[in-house]
Amino acid sequence: MYGLIGHIRATPGDRDSLAEVLLNGARGMPGCLSYVVARDSEDVDALWVTEVWDSSESHQASRSLASVQEAIAAGRPLIEGFVARHEVEPLGGVGLSRR
Amino acid sequence: MYGLIGHIRATPGDRDSLAEVLLNGARGMPGCLSYVVARDSEDVDALWVTEVWDSSESHQASRSLASVQEAIAAGRPLIEGFVARHEVEPLGGVGLSRR
Repeated sequence: MYGLIGHIRATPGDRDSLAEVLLNGARGMPGCLSYVVARDSEDVDALWVTEVWDSSESHQASRSLASVQEAIAAGRPLIEGFVARHEVEPLGGVGLSRR
Repeated sequence: MYGLIGHIRATPGDRDSLAEVLLNGARGMPGCLSYVVARDSEDVDALWVTEVWDSSESHQASRSLASVQEAIAAGRPLIEGFVARHEVEPLGGVGLSRR
Protein backbone atom coordinates (compact mmCIF):
# COMPACT_ATOMS: atom_id res chain seq x y z
CA MET A 1 0.00 0.00 0.00
CA TYR A 2 0.98 3.61 -0.48
CA GLY A 3 0.00 6.52 1.74
CA LEU A 4 0.23 10.28 1.95
CA ILE A 5 -0.21 12.54 4.95
CA GLY A 6 -0.53 16.15 3.88
CA HIS A 7 -0.78 19.27 6.01
CA ILE A 8 -2.12 22.04 3.83
CA ARG A 9 -2.70 25.71 4.57
CA ALA A 10 -5.58 27.34 2.72
CA THR A 11 -5.62 30.98 1.75
CA PRO A 12 -7.16 32.89 4.70
CA GLY A 13 -10.85 32.10 5.15
CA ASP A 14 -10.93 29.48 2.40
CA ARG A 15 -10.38 26.32 4.41
CA ASP A 16 -13.93 24.97 4.21
CA SER A 17 -14.19 25.78 0.49
CA LEU A 18 -10.94 23.93 -0.12
CA ALA A 19 -12.14 20.96 1.95
CA GLU A 20 -15.31 20.76 -0.14
CA VAL A 21 -13.34 20.82 -3.38
CA LEU A 22 -11.02 18.07 -2.14
CA LEU A 23 -13.88 15.88 -0.90
CA ASN A 24 -15.83 16.24 -4.15
CA GLY A 25 -12.74 15.42 -6.19
CA ALA A 26 -11.95 12.32 -4.17
CA ARG A 27 -15.06 10.36 -5.10
CA GLY A 28 -14.69 7.24 -7.21
CA MET A 29 -10.90 7.13 -7.50
CA PRO A 30 -9.83 3.58 -8.46
CA GLY A 31 -7.40 2.07 -5.96
CA CYS A 32 -8.16 4.65 -3.27
CA LEU A 33 -8.74 2.80 0.00
CA SER A 34 -9.05 5.84 2.24
CA TYR A 35 -9.11 9.60 1.76
CA VAL A 36 -9.97 11.75 4.75
CA VAL A 37 -10.05 15.55 4.95
CA ALA A 38 -9.84 17.04 8.45
CA ARG A 39 -9.67 20.49 9.99
CA ASP A 40 -6.55 21.28 12.00
CA SER A 41 -7.59 22.07 15.57
CA GLU A 42 -4.91 24.71 16.13
CA ASP A 43 -4.56 26.53 12.78
CA VAL A 44 -7.89 27.90 11.48
CA ASP A 45 -6.61 27.88 7.91
CA ALA A 46 -5.07 24.41 7.88
CA LEU A 47 -6.34 21.01 6.73
CA TRP A 48 -4.93 17.51 7.01
CA VAL A 49 -5.45 15.14 4.10
CA THR A 50 -4.65 11.49 4.79
CA GLU A 51 -4.70 9.06 1.88
CA VAL A 52 -4.27 5.29 1.49
CA TRP A 53 -3.90 3.72 -1.96
CA ASP A 54 -3.46 0.11 -3.05
CA SER A 55 -0.28 1.26 -4.85
CA SER A 56 1.63 4.40 -5.75
CA GLU A 57 0.69 3.69 -9.37
CA SER A 58 -3.02 4.06 -8.54
CA HIS A 59 -2.29 7.36 -6.84
CA GLN A 60 -0.30 8.54 -9.84
CA ALA A 61 -3.05 7.42 -12.26
CA SER A 62 -5.71 9.33 -10.28
CA ARG A 63 -4.15 12.58 -11.39
CA SER A 64 -5.42 11.90 -14.89
CA LEU A 65 -9.07 11.51 -13.85
CA ALA A 66 -11.33 14.33 -15.04
CA SER A 67 -12.78 14.73 -11.52
CA VAL A 68 -9.31 15.10 -10.03
CA GLN A 69 -8.18 17.49 -12.76
CA GLU A 70 -11.22 19.63 -11.97
CA ALA A 71 -10.47 19.52 -8.25
CA ILE A 72 -6.85 20.53 -8.85
CA ALA A 73 -7.98 23.47 -10.99
CA ALA A 74 -10.60 24.57 -8.46
CA GLY A 75 -8.42 23.95 -5.42
CA ARG A 76 -5.13 25.50 -6.49
CA PRO A 77 -6.19 29.15 -5.94
CA LEU A 78 -7.44 28.20 -2.45
CA ILE A 79 -4.09 26.75 -1.33
CA GLU A 80 -1.53 28.97 0.37
CA GLY A 81 0.99 26.17 0.68
CA PHE A 82 1.95 22.79 2.06
CA VAL A 83 3.08 22.80 5.69
CA ALA A 84 4.25 19.20 5.32
CA ARG A 85 3.78 16.21 3.05
CA HIS A 86 4.80 12.72 4.13
CA GLU A 87 4.89 9.60 2.00
CA VAL A 88 4.16 6.54 4.16
CA GLU A 89 3.69 2.80 3.79
CA PRO A 90 0.37 1.74 5.34
CA LEU A 91 0.44 -1.74 6.88
CA GLY A 92 -3.25 -2.22 7.58
CA GLY A 93 -6.02 -1.21 9.91
CA VAL A 94 -9.67 -0.31 10.07
CA GLY A 95 -11.54 1.49 7.28
CA LEU A 96 -9.50 0.46 4.26
CA SER A 97 -12.38 -0.19 1.89
CA ARG A 98 -11.50 -1.37 -1.59
CA ARG A 99 -13.37 0.53 -4.29
CA MET B 1 -16.09 13.40 14.10
CA TYR B 2 -12.84 13.31 16.03
CA GLY B 3 -9.43 12.44 14.64
CA LEU B 4 -5.88 11.88 15.73
CA ILE B 5 -2.70 11.91 13.69
CA GLY B 6 0.19 10.46 15.65
CA HIS B 7 3.84 10.20 14.67
CA ILE B 8 5.44 7.63 16.97
CA ARG B 9 9.04 6.50 17.25
CA ALA B 10 9.57 2.89 18.30
CA THR B 11 12.55 1.71 20.28
CA PRO B 12 15.27 0.81 17.73
CA GLY B 13 14.36 -2.26 15.71
CA ASP B 14 10.89 -2.63 17.23
CA ARG B 15 8.80 -0.76 14.67
CA ASP B 16 7.13 -3.79 13.09
CA SER B 17 6.44 -5.39 16.46
CA LEU B 18 4.83 -2.17 17.63
CA ALA B 19 2.76 -1.94 14.45
CA GLU B 20 1.47 -5.48 15.01
CA VAL B 21 0.51 -4.70 18.60
CA LEU B 22 -1.34 -1.55 17.50
CA LEU B 23 -3.17 -3.29 14.66
CA ASN B 24 -4.25 -6.19 16.86
CA GLY B 25 -5.46 -3.82 19.55
CA ALA B 26 -7.48 -1.73 17.09
CA ARG B 27 -9.95 -4.44 16.11
CA GLY B 28 -13.59 -4.06 17.09
CA MET B 29 -13.42 -0.65 18.75
CA PRO B 30 -16.96 0.85 18.87
CA GLY B 31 -17.17 4.22 17.12
CA CYS B 32 -13.85 3.78 15.33
CA LEU B 33 -14.38 4.71 11.67
CA SER B 34 -10.76 4.44 10.56
CA TYR B 35 -7.47 3.37 12.17
CA VAL B 36 -4.44 3.05 9.91
CA VAL B 37 -0.89 2.18 10.92
CA ALA B 38 1.83 3.14 8.42
CA ARG B 39 5.60 3.00 8.25
CA ASP B 40 7.41 6.32 7.94
CA SER B 41 9.37 6.32 4.68
CA GLU B 42 12.28 8.37 6.05
CA ASP B 43 12.72 7.20 9.67
CA VAL B 44 13.17 3.40 9.99
CA ASP B 45 11.92 3.47 13.57
CA ALA B 46 8.85 5.67 13.06
CA LEU B 47 5.18 4.91 12.51
CA TRP B 48 2.20 7.09 11.68
CA VAL B 49 -1.15 6.22 13.26
CA THR B 50 -4.17 8.02 11.81
CA GLU B 51 -7.51 7.61 13.56
CA VAL B 52 -11.08 8.73 12.86
CA TRP B 53 -13.79 8.34 15.50
CA ASP B 54 -17.48 9.21 15.48
CA SER B 55 -16.79 11.30 18.61
CA SER B 56 -14.05 12.07 21.10
CA GLU B 57 -16.18 10.23 23.68
CA SER B 58 -15.88 6.99 21.66
CA HIS B 59 -12.12 7.45 21.51
CA GLN B 60 -11.98 8.04 25.24
CA ALA B 61 -14.19 5.02 25.93
CA SER B 62 -11.95 2.76 23.82
CA ARG B 63 -9.21 3.09 26.41
CA SER B 64 -11.30 0.98 28.77
CA LEU B 65 -11.62 -1.96 26.35
CA ALA B 66 -9.70 -5.06 27.43
CA SER B 67 -8.13 -5.37 23.95
CA VAL B 68 -6.89 -1.79 24.10
CA GLN B 69 -5.61 -2.18 27.65
CA GLU B 70 -3.63 -5.22 26.49
CA ALA B 71 -2.25 -3.31 23.49
CA ILE B 72 -1.20 -0.40 25.70
CA ALA B 73 0.59 -2.79 28.08
CA ALA B 74 2.30 -4.65 25.23
CA GLY B 75 3.08 -1.54 23.20
CA ARG B 76 4.43 0.79 25.88
CA PRO B 77 7.90 -0.83 26.16
CA LEU B 78 8.23 -0.66 22.36
CA ILE B 79 7.63 3.11 22.19
CA GLU B 80 10.56 5.51 22.39
CA GLY B 81 8.35 8.57 22.18
CA PHE B 82 5.85 10.63 20.27
CA VAL B 83 7.34 12.83 17.54
CA ALA B 84 4.01 14.61 17.16
CA ARG B 85 0.34 14.15 18.01
CA HIS B 86 -2.35 16.23 16.34
CA GLU B 87 -6.02 16.35 17.24
CA VAL B 88 -8.11 17.04 14.13
CA GLU B 89 -11.73 17.36 13.08
CA PRO B 90 -12.45 15.02 10.14
CA LEU B 91 -15.05 16.37 7.73
CA GLY B 92 -15.57 13.31 5.55
CA GLY B 93 -14.04 11.27 2.81
CA VAL B 94 -13.50 7.75 1.57
CA GLY B 95 -13.11 4.73 3.85
CA LEU B 96 -15.00 5.90 6.92
CA SER B 97 -16.79 2.66 7.68
CA ARG B 98 -19.08 2.64 10.65
CA ARG B 99 -18.51 -0.35 12.94
